[in-house]
Amino acid sequence: MDQRISFVTLAVADLATSRRFYVGGLGWEPELDDPEVVMFDAGPRLVFALWDRAAFEAEVGGRAVQGQGLLPFTLAHNVETPAQVDEVLSLAARAGAEVGRATDREWGGYTGYFADPDGVRWEVAWNPGPIGRRVVPGTDPTPRG
Amino acid sequence: MDQRISFVTLAVADLATSRRFYVGGLGWEPELDDPEVVMFDAGPRLVFALWDRAAFEAEVGGRAVQGQGLLPFTLAHNVETPAQVDEVLSLAARAGAEVGRATDREWGGYTGYFADPDGVRWEVAWNPGPIGRRVVPGTDPTPRG
Repeated sequence: MDQRISFVTLAVADLATSRRFYVGGLGWEPELDDPEVVMFDAGPRLVFALWDRAAFEAEVGGRAVQGQGLLPFTLAHNVETPAQVDEVLSLAARAGAEVGRATDREWGGYTGYFADPDGVRWEVAWNPGPIGRRVVPGTDPTPRG
Repeated sequence: MDQRISFVTLAVADLATSRRFYVGGLGWEPELDDPEVVMFDAGPRLVFALWDRAAFEAEVGGRAVQGQGLLPFTLAHNVETPAQVDEVLSLAARAGAEVGRATDREWGGYTGYFADPDGVRWEVAWNPGPIGRRVVPGTDPTPRG
């Protein structure tokens, strides 16, 4: 198989709240906006989907975990400068997100987290290393995928 | 902010098991392979990272949820033909994944799921609609991102 992620889908507790956060708060523009699902372009060949939890459970089959604690995954949004890390975290705070102050990381970057309405952690990252540079616009997309 | 996902990171219970599944089983090639993290290209500007759960918890802060049930997110791998859906699911089954038989969907596609060693559901999808066509190689990447 090719090594590609095409969609990242979150099952959300309340789609109206999530829509308000991503569209109204962060300014994302949906490609598709239906009563049960909202989809956004999130990269050259990547879609980010928010799916009403009940509809998600009906299609995937089963009940979503409702435990306490961190979800065992994060999404990251990489930017070109440390100042942009602070800008995006400020935007997320104005949108109502819980936000952690960005800090210098031992590997040379500068990153902070915000949590979306379902507690999904987004890392906002300036990563001056080779992998970090490759994922930000202005670089040529890697040939694979 | 731009609407971009740069990294998708999973906190995994046992990195050796996950590496065996994705590298040995599915044939993905790491860009970075360290004792605590493995990173793969997963799209033109997207990295997929597997992170040892203890290291993840130490950096993100807190304990990862360990409840029963579905994780409230899925990843999708879109392909060009229905036959490729079955091929990828067969590959995942040979790699040891729990696999659900693919089915025709009411929206016109053909999809099935497999679960990685931590129970992360991957949807393998043939989606003949406009959004589905946009995420597979051979199409021009969308201008945004």
